[in-house]
Formats: sequence, C-alpha cells, structure tokens
Amino acid sequence: MQKPTPSPKRFLEDFTVGEVFETASIGVNANEILAFAASFDPQPFHLDEAAARAGFFGGLVASGWHTGALTMRLFVESGVMREIGVIGFGVDQLRWLAPVAPGDELHVRGEVIEVRPRPHRPARGIVRIRIETVNQHGLTVMTQIPNLVVPGRPAYGNSP
Amino acid sequence: MQKPTPSPKRFLEDFTVGEVFETASIGVNANEILAFAASFDPQPFHLDEAAARAGFFGGLVASGWHTGALTMRLFVESGVMREIGVIGFGVDQLRWLAPVAPGDELHVRGEVIEVRPRPHRPARGIVRIRIETVNQHGLTVMTQIPNLVVPGRPAYGNSP
Repeated sequence: MQKPTPSPKRFLEDFTVGEVFETASIGVNANEILAFAASFDPQPFHLDEAAARAGFFGGLVASGWHTGALTMRLFVESGVMREIGVIGFGVDQLRWLAPVAPGDELHVRGEVIEVRPRPHRPARGIVRIRIETVNQHGLTVMTQIPNLVVPGRPAYGNSP
Repeated sequence: MQKPTPSPKRFLEDFTVGEVFETASIGVNANEILAFAASFDPQPFHLDEAAARAGFFGGLVASGWHTGALTMRLFVESGVMREIGVIGFGVDQLRWLAPVAPGDELHVRGEVIEVRPRPHRPARGIVRIRIETVNQHGLTVMTQIPNLVVPGRPAYGNSP
C-alpha cells in the first residue's frame, strides 16, 4: 500500500484505525446560545436566562444541536479531511453528556475507529471516527460516531 | 393506569408505543443555508452556489446539522411533548438520506417506538421516537431516533 502523498487530497487509503487528532477551540456566549435557540430550539432553558434558572438545567444552556453544529465547525476547520471535505451519511450514538453554558470553550478530539473499503473499485469507502467535544475543564460534553464518505485513491484497483 | 389528564404536563405514562404525529412545515432558502454554513459548516457545497455546482452534490445543499436543527424546531413547536419540553440525552441512527436544497419545505413525522420506565419511582423514563424529516415531494431527507427524558407522573409509585 502506498504511503500518503503530499497531495492536498486525502483518500480512504490514507486513513488508519487509531489515528487521533485534536482541533482548535471555540467559545460560545449567551447571545449566540439565545440566537441559535430562537431559530432552532425555542425552549425556555435555551431562550431565557430567568426561565432557565428555574428549569431543568438550573441555568441557560446551549441547544444540543448548537453543540453539534459547533463541533462540525471545529472538525471542518481542523483540516483532518483535507480537500475531500466532511461528507457524512449519518451519525451513530450521538450523546449529550453535560450541558454547555455561556462562556464555555469547546474543542474536539477524534480517533479513527474503522476504515471500510467497498467492493467496487475505485469506490468510496466509509471512515468512522469517534468524536468527543470537550469543554475548558476537560469535561466531555458530547460524543458521536460520524460515518464519513471518503473516495478511494484513483489508482486503487489498478495496483497489483 | 390512569388516562392522560387535561393537565398541560405530559408524563411518561401518557406515551404509548405506536403513537404517531406530524408537524407543521418550514421552508429553507439559500440565504439561510449560506448563513448556517458560514457559522457552522464552512464547506464549498454549503457556502457558495458556483462551487457547489461543481462539487459532490451538484448544487447548493444545506448542512446536515442545519436539517437537524430545523427538525428540532419543528418537533419543539409541534407541542407533542407539551410542557415537559424536548430534553434528549442522545440520538441514535441519525441518517441523511437526501440533500436539502434552497426552496425546500420540510415537515416531520414521528412514531413512538419505545416507552421505558425506570426502576426508581417517581422517576424519569425514556421515550424513543422514530423521527422522519420529509420534504415537499414526500421524500424522506433525514431519519433519527432521539432518546427523550420524560418525568413519570407524580402519583406513580403511590398507586397500587
């Protein structure tokens, strides 16, 4: 098997189970939490600080979908997938483990857990990555396993 | 077991496997797709119409997390969960089955597939709902199974 070339593209054959990465971090403030909630998750504990204090979480927290969206941004900007982009057909075991509050700073850790070629060559294969979204205290707030669509190296299938 | 009361609250005992619902619909336009992508999924096929035409999807499409966030809004606004709110600890089998393009109109269909009390009473239980996000052509663009946290009826545990 060839080693990865310096090409800007990254192919299925360039991924190895056990590869780990860590992204930059991004902050989230109250205004962003309120704006996301107004558009996508209009519930009192995401929308209103006073109502949130009296509610389930005891304070304002980000929509879980907001945390997911921020995680996507960190992953895209990490450059881990290089030019192929982050194209997923789905996510398994999405879990919200701890609330995300105003002022939190999130980053993402990932580990490739499966690289699955497909029988048709040169085809796309599937790369599964275990993703953890971690806050500034080192607490994991969200986990997921995206299933990513990754093209095989064009020469693949022609090699012996 | 008691039948649901006219209370604005809805409890675990008020959910039945096989219950189905359908939400209102919501449109998504190019500006919204571009704005979401700029904040959360900055990739060419979500960010730029010309680049998108040359890319994987052959045209501008919404971030999958945008479709997820719109689905959350439709579910929250449906009132299915009433006052208890939509509080999930996670989602299983999130799948993006078809692209969402500018001008699409989405609605959500749901079916309760599991109602799981917990041993500690009066406790919170888990309700699992199979959710389909469907476009204006009747095509399912996304599916998922959220795991929702639902309080048991307060009297539960005192009844014989």
